[in-house]
Amino acid sequence: MTDAAFAKLPEPPYYSVIFSSRRSGAEGGYERAANRMLELAATQPGYLGVESARDGDGFGITVSYWSSLEAISAWKANAEHLSAQQAGQRRWYAHYELRIARVERAYAKQA
Amino acid sequence: MTDAAFAKLPEPPYYSVIFSSRRSGAEGGYERAANRMLELAATQPGYLGVESARDGDGFGITVSYWSSLEAISAWKANAEHLSAQQAGQRRWYAHYELRIARVERAYAKQA
Repeated sequence: MTDAAFAKLPEPPYYSVIFSSRRSGAEGGYERAANRMLELAATQPGYLGVESARDGDGFGITVSYWSSLEAISAWKANAEHLSAQQAGQRRWYAHYELRIARVERAYAKQA
Repeated sequence: MTDAAFAKLPEPPYYSVIFSSRRSGAEGGYERAANRMLELAATQPGYLGVESARDGDGFGITVSYWSSLEAISAWKANAEHLSAQQAGQRRWYAHYELRIARVERAYAKQA
């Protein structure tokens, strides 16, 4: 299974950030910043992977996976990420919800 | 905030099922079954809500929220749901990953 949309993760336990969002429709650098955040997240300590889908109405879910709560806190506090979070809050998202969850079990479709 | 795509959830802790999937392209009743499963899930004990997004390439993430692991187990074992799971495995999904996670913290965009 080589579908790059799926994160390749270790056995649980690990942590997830479930980010559900509705785009505002304002572009203003959104695509570039979103891609940059994916790229930057992947370089952070404790980063395990990410999966993301957005429908045609601008509702999306991005789930990033991390080895620990400390890794998530450090990513949240990253300076470049903080700047993007502020732009997201002010411009790019009409609404969002963010949930931090400990993954305890995982299954996949059998080949 | 009355955007129906977002689940209205209680304060954590609660549980989530993160279902990431790639559609095979085979229709064969998928839409009807997927809608029926959303409808049926909402009637189950311990169901809290669901959020779902699928992109134009057929990659999607559905996160359902539950009050307990027992509620998730009961939903997994529901007879009509088992039948849909089998059709999903055989026909509707090229691949999927399913992760069960305990939501510990939650934040939202401030109005």
